[in-house]
Amino acid sequence: MSQRQLKLGAFLLHNGHHVAAWRHPQADAGSNPLKLYKELAQTAERACFDAIFFADSVALTSGVGGLEPLTLLSALAAVTEHIGLIGTATTTYNEPYHVARKFASLDRLSGGRAGWNLVTSDNASEAANFGRQEHVAHSDRYARAREFHEVVRGLWNSWEDDAILNDKEGGRQFNPEKLHPLHHRGEHFSVAGPLNVSRSPQGHPIVVQAGGSEAGKNLAAETADVVFTAHPTLASAQQFYADLKQRVRHAGRSEESLKIMPGLFPIVGKTQAEAEEKWNVLQALVLPKDGLALLGRMIGNFDLSGYPIDEPLPELPLTNSGQQSRQKLLTSLAQGENLTIRELYLRIAGGRGHFTLVGTPEYIADHMQEWFENGAADGFNIMPPYLSQGFTDFAELVIPELQRRGLVRTRYEGSTLRENLGLSFPTYQR
Amino acid sequence: MSQRQLKLGAFLLHNGHHVAAWRHPQADAGSNPLKLYKELAQTAERACFDAIFFADSVALTSGVGGLEPLTLLSALAAVTEHIGLIGTATTTYNEPYHVARKFASLDRLSGGRAGWNLVTSDNASEAANFGRQEHVAHSDRYARAREFHEVVRGLWNSWEDDAILNDKEGGRQFNPEKLHPLHHRGEHFSVAGPLNVSRSPQGHPIVVQAGGSEAGKNLAAETADVVFTAHPTLASAQQFYADLKQRVRHAGRSEESLKIMPGLFPIVGKTQAEAEEKWNVLQALVLPKDGLALLGRMIGNFDLSGYPIDEPLPELPLTNSGQQSRQKLLTSLAQGENLTIRELYLRIAGGRGHFTLVGTPEYIADHMQEWFENGAADGFNIMPPYLSQGFTDFAELVIPELQRRGLVRTRYEGSTLRENLGLSFPTYQR
Repeated sequence: MSQRQLKLGAFLLHNGHHVAAWRHPQADAGSNPLKLYKELAQTAERACFDAIFFADSVALTSGVGGLEPLTLLSALAAVTEHIGLIGTATTTYNEPYHVARKFASLDRLSGGRAGWNLVTSDNASEAANFGRQEHVAHSDRYARAREFHEVVRGLWNSWEDDAILNDKEGGRQFNPEKLHPLHHRGEHFSVAGPLNVSRSPQGHPIVVQAGGSEAGKNLAAETADVVFTAHPTLASAQQFYADLKQRVRHAGRSEESLKIMPGLFPIVGKTQAEAEEKWNVLQALVLPKDGLALLGRMIGNFDLSGYPIDEPLPELPLTNSGQQSRQKLLTSLAQGENLTIRELYLRIAGGRGHFTLVGTPEYIADHMQEWFENGAADGFNIMPPYLSQGFTDFAELVIPELQRRGLVRTRYEGSTLRENLGLSFPTYQR
Repeated sequence: MSQRQLKLGAFLLHNGHHVAAWRHPQADAGSNPLKLYKELAQTAERACFDAIFFADSVALTSGVGGLEPLTLLSALAAVTEHIGLIGTATTTYNEPYHVARKFASLDRLSGGRAGWNLVTSDNASEAANFGRQEHVAHSDRYARAREFHEVVRGLWNSWEDDAILNDKEGGRQFNPEKLHPLHHRGEHFSVAGPLNVSRSPQGHPIVVQAGGSEAGKNLAAETADVVFTAHPTLASAQQFYADLKQRVRHAGRSEESLKIMPGLFPIVGKTQAEAEEKWNVLQALVLPKDGLALLGRMIGNFDLSGYPIDEPLPELPLTNSGQQSRQKLLTSLAQGENLTIRELYLRIAGGRGHFTLVGTPEYIADHMQEWFENGAADGFNIMPPYLSQGFTDFAELVIPELQRRGLVRTRYEGSTLRENLGLSFPTYQR
């Protein structure tokens, strides 16, 4: 049996993941976004990444906004051949027919490389763009998300694998017995179906999730192919990994059918000193207003602009947003180390609580290998500090080191994202 | 002043416009849709078409379905340079924030080549995919469409043209005084904004409409850049053209600010006999079930499968769908010429009531010129009978003839769709 290998995503956030990314002297100013992302996707493909990944928000949350993931990924489908294309779409402010259809269409266009990152929205700014005064409560969001997923999956099963005949002579375009309307009637949705895009080359597109709550982990254990997650330490990642794999088993699935990929924020230097210098350059570019805005968002949408930044973080009420666990983590970090507001936002200015590695290719590969071989990760979602050099450094310096160790492929083994992730083709079922 | 020239769209319907297109021996079976549409888009670009255009339905209406227009157009943005990219999105079962954002994103990706074909949905199959028992009544659809357009346009005005600064040294990513939330509160929508995609290279994407009702024509006169329309005869097209241009003047706009493009279904032969032979090949491939389904849809979603096809069309009640004018046209045609059901569906099997020309390049160019120079059209939306040869015939045989006459450009004069259509850049306004 061949060696187990790391699954790798390239998490390409607009400007990059460091809060000062846009101010980096080498950062792309975004005048030709297709050119930038085409180069990044092709760099990732040369480095044999499994997928590129775009997050999403249906509101202006920071900076100047980016592009909409489905349109961007579709454009990139036309200029890449192997790499998976994973985009985020919220179940809170969408209709399942649209989401099922767009990802099925991307899957057909890309020859089987689409992935849907299923999220729920916990943000009041998003609610206000869809006719709501308040964001939806957590339990309601997850009930809706679960039914949304059920409908999407049902629509992806509208056509059996061999439903399309294209029998010109016989006059049969498809076999009507293999076309199945859905007739879904539930609490949140009524959807007749069938989908008007024929069956996906992957059976159905890959489903990715990232929810860390009880409801989120249970939904993922039952329905996800990939889970993205955030852990600053090996111990925390191991605990999450063991917990989620156990839930997967309890849901009646094999452990291998769900891949766990923590985020990794890497700053790569040819020497340790060079890596640290790159880190210091970025940290020195953090503007107080950007740092305060980031910290305010992460502790639950608080406006911190009125507080003196060189004094300790004030006591804050428990947030009612989706950021409760992040708020607790950060307030206890600040109290435990007696950090000022400025010190605290500088701590999260890069990886925002994700696994952060600043060092040489060997150093970074060592730590990735440690997590991979000790029950903490099936792979990583790489979060480049700024675009595009911050990603190229990883692709051209760390990937070859991982390939030398046999931990990353040197050519794509399959033609679909599903095959490359080592996931089985979903047998047709209603 | 340079000669006024035809505006041309390539209306690329899945399989082609003839109801038997999928059975044509040369028809593409669709196993690699991106390859097919990439070749078609590049053929259209070589022929200096203004735009390619995709219709849409959010239900399975006929055949095996195609691809979703926004994902397909985004993929084509990456492999073309000049041609406009017009896609349909319904206002009846969408949210304006999503639609504004996806077209703005396509516009940024393509460097200013996006167009939105604004439609309303009158189809019970579509309603059933979005939790409704019945399709929405005509007047309600248009009230919603009008407000939907207002919100989309407002969101496209979120960022002034010079709002983005990207001043790395000064630490100003954008000028907050030039970012404008919308705060729309209306009967159908509440949308706070701002849009999280910055201002479109075209100011905002082109808006296309095709409604032929009073409400549709008035909305178009006030808000559309381009109108697609269906007319079998010069007289009918002239009447429509004069009527709509008058409405445009009454709305306080210049006549030139709205381009009227009737559909044109062409079958091109090097000789008249060759063209007719091509037509006969397609007509002979029409299956009764496909002809009956087409006719049933066009007269208002009636199931005609129980009627003898070689007898006259039965008396039918007036449809309550959006097809009332088409129903009247077809029933009076059948009665006037005493057509059987079969004869009637064969009449519409090609252009479905659109301007139809079967002949040599010179013959087709003569008639296009006649319409263009006699107040019937600012251009045409070309409806190829089958893909891809049915389109290549037009691009390679008719276009050169039109170019010899100075009626079609030989190179793109502008870099955006708006410039190529000869439309002015929208001045920023709130």
